Amino acid sequence: EGLETSSASKATRTLPIEPLDTFPRRHIGPKASSVEQMLQTLDPPAKSLDDFVKQVIPSDVLSSRNLQISSTSGSSRHLDRGLTESELLQEMERIMSQNKPGLSFIGQGYADTKVPEVIKRNVFENPAWYTSYTPYQPEISQGRLESLLNFQTMVTDLTGLAIANASVLDEPTAAAEAMTLSLGALPMSRQKRPNKAFLVSNTCHPQTIAVLESRAQGFGIKIVVADVLADNCEAVEDLGSDLVGVLVQYPDTHGGVADYKSLAEKVHKSGSLLSVATDLLALTTLTPPGEFGADIALGNAQRFGVPLGYGGPHAAFFATSEKYKRKIPGRLIGMSKDRLGNPAARLALQTREQHIRREKATSNICTAQALLANMSAFYAVYHGPKGLTEIAKNVTAMTRYIQQRLVQAGFQTGNGPAMDNKPAPFDTFIVATGEKTGAIFEKLESESIHVRKLDDSRISISVDETTDMAKAHKLLAAMDVSVDSSNPAEIDVSVPEQFKRTTPFLTHPVFNSYHSETELLRYIYHLQSKDLSLVHSMIPLGSCTMKLNATAEMAPVTWPTVSSLHPFVPLESAKGYKVMTEQLESDLASITGFHSVSLQPNSGAQGEFAGLRVIREYLKHKNAEDGKKRDVCLIPVSAHGTNPASAAMCGMRVVPVKCENSTGNLDMADLKAKCEKHSDEIGAIMITYPSTFGVFEPNIKAVCDMIHEHGGQVYMDGANMNAQIGLCSPGEIGADVCHLNLHKTFCIPHGGGGPGVGPIGVKEHLAPFLPGHLRGETGGEHAIAPVSGAPWGSASILPISYAYIKMMGPVGLTQATKITLLNANYILARLKPHYNILYTNAEGRCAHEFILDVRPLKETAGVEAIDIAKRLQDYGFHAPTMSWPVANTLMIEPTESESKEELDRFCDALISIRKEIAAVENGKVPKEGNVLKMAPHTQQDLLRSEWDRPYSREEAAYPLPYLRERKFWPAVARLDDAYGDTNLFCTCAPVEDSEDITGAAAPTPT
Amino acid sequence: EGLETSSASKATRTLPIEPLDTFPRRHIGPKASSVEQMLQTLDPPAKSLDDFVKQVIPSDVLSSRNLQISSTSGSSRHLDRGLTESELLQEMERIMSQNKPGLSFIGQGYADTKVPEVIKRNVFENPAWYTSYTPYQPEISQGRLESLLNFQTMVTDLTGLAIANASVLDEPTAAAEAMTLSLGALPMSRQKRPNKAFLVSNTCHPQTIAVLESRAQGFGIKIVVADVLADNCEAVEDLGSDLVGVLVQYPDTHGGVADYKSLAEKVHKSGSLLSVATDLLALTTLTPPGEFGADIALGNAQRFGVPLGYGGPHAAFFATSEKYKRKIPGRLIGMSKDRLGNPAARLALQTREQHIRREKATSNICTAQALLANMSAFYAVYHGPKGLTEIAKNVTAMTRYIQQRLVQAGFQTGNGPAMDNKPAPFDTFIVATGEKTGAIFEKLESESIHVRKLDDSRISISVDETTDMAKAHKLLAAMDVSVDSSNPAEIDVSVPEQFKRTTPFLTHPVFNSYHSETELLRYIYHLQSKDLSLVHSMIPLGSCTMKLNATAEMAPVTWPTVSSLHPFVPLESAKGYKVMTEQLESDLASITGFHSVSLQPNSGAQGEFAGLRVIREYLKHKNAEDGKKRDVCLIPVSAHGTNPASAAMCGMRVVPVKCENSTGNLDMADLKAKCEKHSDEIGAIMITYPSTFGVFEPNIKAVCDMIHEHGGQVYMDGANMNAQIGLCSPGEIGADVCHLNLHKTFCIPHGGGGPGVGPIGVKEHLAPFLPGHLRGETGGEHAIAPVSGAPWGSASILPISYAYIKMMGPVGLTQATKITLLNANYILARLKPHYNILYTNAEGRCAHEFILDVRPLKETAGVEAIDIAKRLQDYGFHAPTMSWPVANTLMIEPTESESKEELDRFCDALISIRKEIAAVENGKVPKEGNVLKMAPHTQQDLLRSEWDRPYSREEAAYPLPYLRERKFWPAVARLDDAYGDTNLFCTCAPVEDSEDITGAAAPTPT
Ligand SMILES: Cc1ncc(COP(=O)(O)O)c(C=O)c1O
Ligand SMILES: Cc1ncc(COP(=O)(O)O)c(C=O)c1O
Ligand SMILES: O=C([O-])O
Repeated sequence: EGLETSSASKATRTLPIEPLDTFPRRHIGPKASSVEQMLQTLDPPAKSLDDFVKQVIPSDVLSSRNLQISSTSGSSRHLDRGLTESELLQEMERIMSQNKPGLSFIGQGYADTKVPEVIKRNVFENPAWYTSYTPYQPEISQGRLESLLNFQTMVTDLTGLAIANASVLDEPTAAAEAMTLSLGALPMSRQKRPNKAFLVSNTCHPQTIAVLESRAQGFGIKIVVADVLADNCEAVEDLGSDLVGVLVQYPDTHGGVADYKSLAEKVHKSGSLLSVATDLLALTTLTPPGEFGADIALGNAQRFGVPLGYGGPHAAFFATSEKYKRKIPGRLIGMSKDRLGNPAARLALQTREQHIRREKATSNICTAQALLANMSAFYAVYHGPKGLTEIAKNVTAMTRYIQQRLVQAGFQTGNGPAMDNKPAPFDTFIVATGEKTGAIFEKLESESIHVRKLDDSRISISVDETTDMAKAHKLLAAMDVSVDSSNPAEIDVSVPEQFKRTTPFLTHPVFNSYHSETELLRYIYHLQSKDLSLVHSMIPLGSCTMKLNATAEMAPVTWPTVSSLHPFVPLESAKGYKVMTEQLESDLASITGFHSVSLQPNSGAQGEFAGLRVIREYLKHKNAEDGKKRDVCLIPVSAHGTNPASAAMCGMRVVPVKCENSTGNLDMADLKAKCEKHSDEIGAIMITYPSTFGVFEPNIKAVCDMIHEHGGQVYMDGANMNAQIGLCSPGEIGADVCHLNLHKTFCIPHGGGGPGVGPIGVKEHLAPFLPGHLRGETGGEHAIAPVSGAPWGSASILPISYAYIKMMGPVGLTQATKITLLNANYILARLKPHYNILYTNAEGRCAHEFILDVRPLKETAGVEAIDIAKRLQDYGFHAPTMSWPVANTLMIEPTESESKEELDRFCDALISIRKEIAAVENGKVPKEGNVLKMAPHTQQDLLRSEWDRPYSREEAAYPLPYLRERKFWPAVARLDDAYGDTNLFCTCAPVEDSEDITGAAAPTPT
Repeated sequence: EGLETSSASKATRTLPIEPLDTFPRRHIGPKASSVEQMLQTLDPPAKSLDDFVKQVIPSDVLSSRNLQISSTSGSSRHLDRGLTESELLQEMERIMSQNKPGLSFIGQGYADTKVPEVIKRNVFENPAWYTSYTPYQPEISQGRLESLLNFQTMVTDLTGLAIANASVLDEPTAAAEAMTLSLGALPMSRQKRPNKAFLVSNTCHPQTIAVLESRAQGFGIKIVVADVLADNCEAVEDLGSDLVGVLVQYPDTHGGVADYKSLAEKVHKSGSLLSVATDLLALTTLTPPGEFGADIALGNAQRFGVPLGYGGPHAAFFATSEKYKRKIPGRLIGMSKDRLGNPAARLALQTREQHIRREKATSNICTAQALLANMSAFYAVYHGPKGLTEIAKNVTAMTRYIQQRLVQAGFQTGNGPAMDNKPAPFDTFIVATGEKTGAIFEKLESESIHVRKLDDSRISISVDETTDMAKAHKLLAAMDVSVDSSNPAEIDVSVPEQFKRTTPFLTHPVFNSYHSETELLRYIYHLQSKDLSLVHSMIPLGSCTMKLNATAEMAPVTWPTVSSLHPFVPLESAKGYKVMTEQLESDLASITGFHSVSLQPNSGAQGEFAGLRVIREYLKHKNAEDGKKRDVCLIPVSAHGTNPASAAMCGMRVVPVKCENSTGNLDMADLKAKCEKHSDEIGAIMITYPSTFGVFEPNIKAVCDMIHEHGGQVYMDGANMNAQIGLCSPGEIGADVCHLNLHKTFCIPHGGGGPGVGPIGVKEHLAPFLPGHLRGETGGEHAIAPVSGAPWGSASILPISYAYIKMMGPVGLTQATKITLLNANYILARLKPHYNILYTNAEGRCAHEFILDVRPLKETAGVEAIDIAKRLQDYGFHAPTMSWPVANTLMIEPTESESKEELDRFCDALISIRKEIAAVENGKVPKEGNVLKMAPHTQQDLLRSEWDRPYSREEAAYPLPYLRERKFWPAVARLDDAYGDTNLFCTCAPVEDSEDITGAAAPTPT
C-alpha cells in the first residue's frame, strides 16, 4: 500500500524530500485496492495480507529476521527503501564506468564483433523478443522457432555436419556434452571401463580443458591432455579401448590449423568419436569439420553479433552427424506440419527431453541461449554467405598485416612450437617476446591494450571484426613497431590449399534476401508478429516465474561499459564488475540465508551440477578419514527432471522418495526408510521448496534434520524462490546449498529459452569448495574446477538482477513475495468452483502456484490438458505448464507482476473454457471436432468459405468480449508432433519411463 | 554495384584494409543484380543507370560538380567514402561527449524530466512508433490515433478548455498561432485596422516574445509588451479597438502566479481573446486557465516525459474553447465510427486543412510533433492524475526548500518586482544577487551548475522533476549556503487558496489503469499492433519520402550527451552540438549548392515561412532606395498548400501561375504574363523541384532567370530534394532560397506526424538575414527575429541527418538519388499497362514519384482513388498520397530504400486491384458492395457467420498468395468521416475552394 506512491497526497513534504520514481509500485501488478478485494475473494477470505501469509507458510518456516540489502555505495550501510529507477541507473553508471574495456587482442574463444544496430535495437533490446518463453507452444512461437531453425541451419552448413541443436550454454560445456555423447555412443562394456579416458588436444582453450575436468569426474572419465597428433597419433593408440573420444580445437587456441583426417580415421578405428571445437567465422574459408571426419563440432557463436559481455551470455553451438541425432543434448527445432497441413516448426523429439528425467542422463541442459542464438542467426541472415566470408577475410588480412609488421620488426611469430613466421591461417598467432615479455605486457596494459600472455616468453595476438587499421597501429606502436603503411601494399588472405573450403554454405534464401536494413527490419518484425510474449498477456507458467523484466533493469545490459569486456581482461580493468558481483553475491546470500554465493553457473541446471559437485567435494574432504563414499542422492518423485540428471552427472546414484498421494507432501515414512537403508551412503537430498506441487510442505525442517542426522547434505532447488524472499529462506530452513534461477525470481528475461543464470548459495562449511577459475579469481580454498567458460558465467546480465534487488529494496522484495502468493491464491479461489485443484495445504492455500487437475475431464468429455492449453491460445493466453510435475494437469503461476485485471481476464478465460467442456459433457456438442479439439484457430482456418463445424467462426475467435478488442492469432493450427518426429528425424526413441518419477508427457519447464 | 560490398571477394586485401560495415548497401534497397533487371524492365529500357539518369534530368540541370561532404574530424578534408556504422557511432560519441549537460536550474519554458524507461525504449526507440506516417489512413492508424486522443484529453482536462489539438511545433509558435487565431476571430473591420496590436505580458518567456515579433510582421500586427495588469489593465484599455488579443504566462517566466480574472473580463469586453501560455504540471495544482476566462491555453508538454534535447523536439499543446474549434490550427483527432458502426478515431475536420491551401491562411502548420505528443500522453497515462500531482508537489517542495535556504542565508527572493520572500507558487523564483551576480554566476558555471541570469543583479532558479536533494545541495553549496537539513522539517506545498485547483482531471479510465510497467508495456504494444509502419511494408506516399530511418542514425538521439542539454546552457557547454551543427550546415550547403544554412525551422512549413521572411527582409534592405514594395508571391497552382499559406503569413499576396494541362509543366506564357503584370511587385516565386507532379520540368532555369529579371527571388520548396542530391542542386539551378525537409530526404523518421526539421539554405546575398536568436548565437548581421523557441530548433534529432550524410558519403548519396529515380520509374513501367500515368517527361520518365490517374475508373467502374487506397490496406500496404496534388489520383513515391522484391509486391497488389476493377467494368461484379467498396476488411467483418457478398471471405483477405504468410489487418473498417464531423464537432465548415489551386479533396502530405 505504502508502495503505491511513496508519499501521500498531502499539503506538506517532510525533509529529505523523497523522489517519486519508485520501482516496487511499477513492478507489482495489483493496486492496494485490488489487494483488499482479492483478500476478500479468497476461499476462505483473509483479513489482511499478513494474516494470509501466515496461512500459507508454516510458522516454523516463517523467518523473523529482516531482509538486508546492501547499499550500492559499497559502504556497510543497508538500503531502507529501494533505489528509484533514476537513482539505480545513476549508480549503475557510476559503478560500471569503472570497467575499462580497452583494446582486446586476447582471443581464446571470445572475439569482439560489430553487433548490427538494427539487431541490437530490434532483437536484443526488444521485449517482444526477450520476454518470450521457450517455444513449447509452437502455434504461438513460430517466429523464434523459424529463427532458431536459421541458427541450426547456419551451424550445420558451416560445420558440414547433418544436425545441430538450438544452442547450448557455452563452448566448454558444449565440449563436455561432446564428451558425454561420446561416452554414450560406446558399447556398454567400454562405458564401464574403469580407466576410460577422454583425450583432449593440448591446443584446446584452457577454460575448455578446465570445465572438462569438472564434468569428467562424475562419469569416472580421466581427461588426458596431449599433443594428439604427435608420433602419428600415438596417444590415441595408447589409450586403446579406454578411449572415450578425442577433442581437438580448429583453429586451435594458438591460431594453428592442423590436418585431422588421419586422426579421425584412427579415432574411428578405435570405435570412438572425434569432436572438434571450432569457430564459425573461420569455417567460411576453412574445410568444415564434417568433411574431415569429425563426428561432433561445437563452439561459441558469440562472434556472430553477440557482445563479449565479460564472458556471456552467448550461444554455443553443437552439431553432429545424422547417426547421433537422438543423442544430441539440448533443444532441437524441427519442421512438421499443422492440422491443416501447413508446414510449421516445433521443438522436435521433445520426448527425448525425458532423458533428463532419469538417472541415466548424461546431460541436464534445460535453459539454453535462445536469445543469443537468434541474434547470431540474424547476424548471418544480414550478412549472408558472402558478407561473412568477407569479414573472415578481413580478419585474416588484419591478422597477417600485424604479423608481417612484427616479423619485419624482428619478432619471431608462429602458431605453435615451430615459430616459423608462416602467415597465420586465420585470426591468431604467437609472438616470441622472450625476455621482454613482462615489459611488453606491462607496456601494453598501461595503454589498456590486452593481449594474451601465454607464458614468460610468449604472448599471442588475436584479431576480430572490430580490429581496424587504427587499432592495429595502436598495438604496433605500443610494441615499438613502425607503422609505415606503404609496404606491403597487398596482403594475401588465402588459406593453404589443403584447408581451403570448397563447399558452399548458407545457400538457403533466408540467408540471401535480407541484406538491406529495411528488409532485415521487416523480417525481424514479421517473425516477432507470430510470437506471444509478455508484451501481450500473462504467461502463467508454473515453475517458470514469468514476471516483469523491467526496462530500467535491462538498460545497462547494452551499455558499452557492460557489454564490451573480454572475460579475460586483467581484473583491474573490470572493477565495476567486481563491485557489482560482490554486492550481488552478498545480497543473494542475505536473501537465501547463506554464507557465500557463486555466480558462475549459467543456468539452473548448471547450478544444480555445481552445487552437488561442491557437496561431493566437501564430503570427500570430510569423510576422507572414515572412508565413507557418500554417493546416494535422495530425490522426491515430484522433482524436476534436471535434479536426477544433475545427480547422475555428478556420479551419484538416485534413490527416489515417495510423495503422499493425498497431500503431495513428501512421504516421511518412505524418507525415513530410505535414510535408514542408505544411512552410510547418503550424500544429499535434493528438494524443491515450496514443492513442485506448489505447496509449502510442513515437514521441511524435519526433512533437513533427518538428512543431516544421516550425514547427508541438503540441496534445495531454488526454482521456487519467488515464493520465499523476505518471508523465509533456504538457509534458515536448513538447506546447505541452493541454486537460484535469476531468470525466474530475479527478473532476467527468459529470452525465448535462455539466457539464464543459476548461482548457488552455500553454508559456510561449503564455501571453500565453490567453483574456481583459471586465474583463481573465483571460488574458495578448495575450489572445484570451473563449471563455465567464464569466471562469472553470463556476467553481462547480472546487472538485471542487481537492479531488481536494489530498486525493490527489502520492503519491496518482501511485498512482492506476499503478492505473488496472493495472486496465486486469488486465481485458485476463482477457479475452485469450476475445476479440481490438486494440492493445497491444510488451510486450503497454495504457495505461488498450484496445479489444476483436469484429468477427470478426459473421462467426462474426452478433453485433455493439451486441449485446454491450445484453446487458451484462442483466448489470447499462453498455456500454464502442461503435464508437469503431474501428467495431464496444468500448473499455474501468475507472479506478483500481474494485475488483478489481468488475473481476472485469465480466470474468465478458463471458466469460459470450462463451460465449453460442460457442453461436451452434456452432450450438446460432440466429443470430436468441437471447439476445444480444433483449437487453436488460425485466421486462415476461420476464413475458409466452407464451414461445417458445430460452432461458429465467431465462437472460435471471440469467445469472450475482450477478444474483439485484443486478439492474438496463432500463426499455425495445432501441430502434428508425431508427423514431425516420424518424418523429419526418422523414428523417435522409445520412451522408457523411469518407474519412480511422476509425470511423463511433457518437457520440463525452465 | 561497388556499393554492395566494399571489397570484392578476392584472395588479397589492399592496404589500408577497409572496414566492411559500410552503410549505403544497407540503406539502398535494390541489389546490383536487381538494378540491372529493373533497367531492362523500364519502358523503354535503359542501357545503364547513368544513361537512365540523363533521360530523367534535363541536361542543363544535371550538375557537373562532385558532391563534397566534410570529414567529421573538422579538418578541411572531405570524405571520399562514407563512414561505416561503427565509425560513425565512434565519431558521434567523440563529438557529442564535448557536450556538458551539467545541472540545470534555468527553466524558461524547459524543464528536465524523468523519461520513464519503459516509454523511452518502447516508444521513443521503437521503429514501430517512430516510422509511422501521419494517421491519414485511420483504419491502419488506430493505435497512434488513440494515443493522440489521450494527448488531447490530457490537455483539455489540465487547461480546463473544451478542445485541444494533437500538438503544434513549440510553445512560441503556439503563441503565434494564438495571436493569429485571435486576429481571425475579430470582425473583419478590426482585422484590417492599421494599428492593430497584440498585447503581450512582459512576464512571458523572452523566446516567445521574440517569435511573436517575427510572426506578427506579416499580419501587420504590432507586438506591445507591457505589464498587462498594471493600473487595472490600463494597457488593454489603451489599445481599445486596436487590440487583437492578449497573451500572459501562467505561471510566468519568473515563477509568479497572478489573478487574470479581471483581465479576462476586460479583454472580452474589448471583443478580443485572452491567451494563456501555461505549464501542464503546474496545472495539476493551479486553477486551470479555462476557469479564469482564458480563450486559448498553450504551452510545452516537454516536461511530461520528453528529453530536453537542447531545445527540441517537444510537443507543444494548444487548447481553446468550443467556440473556436474550427479555427484551431494543426491536426485534431476526433471520434467517429466505421462502416460497421464501431467507434473509431480519425483526423477530424480534415477538410479544415484546406485552409492552409489558401492565401487567407493564418497557419501553415503541417508536420507537427506526434511522436513527442505520444510520449507525453503515455507519461500521463503511466503516472495518472495522482502521480502527476505528486510530482508537481515535489517540485514545489524542492523549490521552496531551496528558496528557504537562500532566504535563511540572507538572500532576497521573490517572483517579480516585490522581492518579498513569499513561497514560490510552483517551480521558479528570483534571487536578488545584487553586486555579486557576476561572481555567483561564474562560480556556478565553473561547477557546471546553470541558472538563469535575469540581469546584472538577479538570477532565477527553476526546479524540475529531476531535482533531488543532492542536486539542490550542490546548488546551495556553490552559492555558499549551508545545508544543515534539520530545519525546517516540513515544507508546505500548498497553493494560495485563490489559485487552488478544485476540478478533477484525467478521470478517464485510460489515465487510471496502466500504472504498473507490465500494464503500460502491454498498452503500448496493444496500440502499436493496430498501426502499419515501415516495419511492415513500404509506404509509397508521394511527396513524403518514407525511406529507411536506420538504427545507427537513430541511436545517438537518446544518448544523454545529446538529449540532456537545456537549450539555454552557455554555448561553451554545448561544443559537441556546435561541431555537429556547423558540419551539418556546411554539408547541406554543399548538397544544395548554397552559401549558408539555418537549422532553426522545425518543419518544412516553418522553413518556408523563414525563407520568405528572409527574402522580404533582403528586399526591404535592397529596395529601401527605390521604394518598391515587393509583396507579390507567384505560386504555381500545383503547389503544396503550405506555400500559399506561408506566403500569406509573410504578408504576401499570392498570384497563381498556371500549369499546362498536357505536361503538368509550368505554363511559361502565363508566367511571363504574370511577371510582366506584376513586374514591380514581385517578391518571389515559390516553386517545387522536381514538380509536385513528379517531373523534372525542363524550363526551370528559364523560370529562375525570368523571376530574377523582374527583380524577384526564387524560393524553392525542397520537399522533393531526394530526387536531386548529387545530380543537381537548387543553388546551381538558380534558386535563392530552399527549405529541406530533413524528415523526408534526410532520414528523420516521420514519427506518426512529426517531429520534423525544415532548414533553409540561401545564396550569399541572403545569408545576413538568416534567423537570429536571443543570444545572437545564430543568424547573420541583419538577422530576422527567431522562428523557433530554440536556437537550433529541434536540435536533438539533427544527428539523424548528420549520420545519414556522413555514412552515405558523396558516392552513396548520389547513388541513392539514382536508385530513387529508378525505383519510381520501375513501378511506373510495371503499372503503365494497367493504369493511366498522369505526367512524364518527353522521354517517358518520371522523377522520384509519379501520379496514377485513376479518375477514368469512376466512370467505368464507379471506383475512386479512396476505394483503391482502402483496398490496398487489404493487400498490406499504406495508400500512396491520395488526391494531392490532383484530386482523385494517387501519387506514388517508393524511395531508394525499397528493394525490387518489395516494389514488385506493391505492383502486384495494384495490378491485382486493377483486375478487381475490371471485373466491375465487365459487369461481372456489381458497382456497389464489391470488394473495393467494402474495403478495408477487418477480422471481425470477415468472421461473421452471415455472408452475402459477391466475393468470398478469402478473396477479401488473401487476394494474393503472399498475404497468407504476411497479413496486416486494419483495426477498423472504413471510417465514416461525415458522421464524425457532423456529430462530434457540430457542423463542418463549408469548404470554399480557391479557384486557382488544383486538387481539393485531401489534406497535404507531410
Ligand atoms: C524446479 C526446477 N528446477 C530446475 C530447473 C532448471 O533450471 P534451468 O532451466 O535454468 O536450467 C527448473 C526450470 O524450469 C525448474 O523448474
Ligand atoms: C511539397 C511540400 N512542401 C511543403 C511541405 C510541408 O512540410 P512540413 O510538413 O515539414 O511542414 C510538404 C509536406 O508534405 C510538401 O510535400
Ligand atoms: O495522406 C494523404 O491523403 O495525402
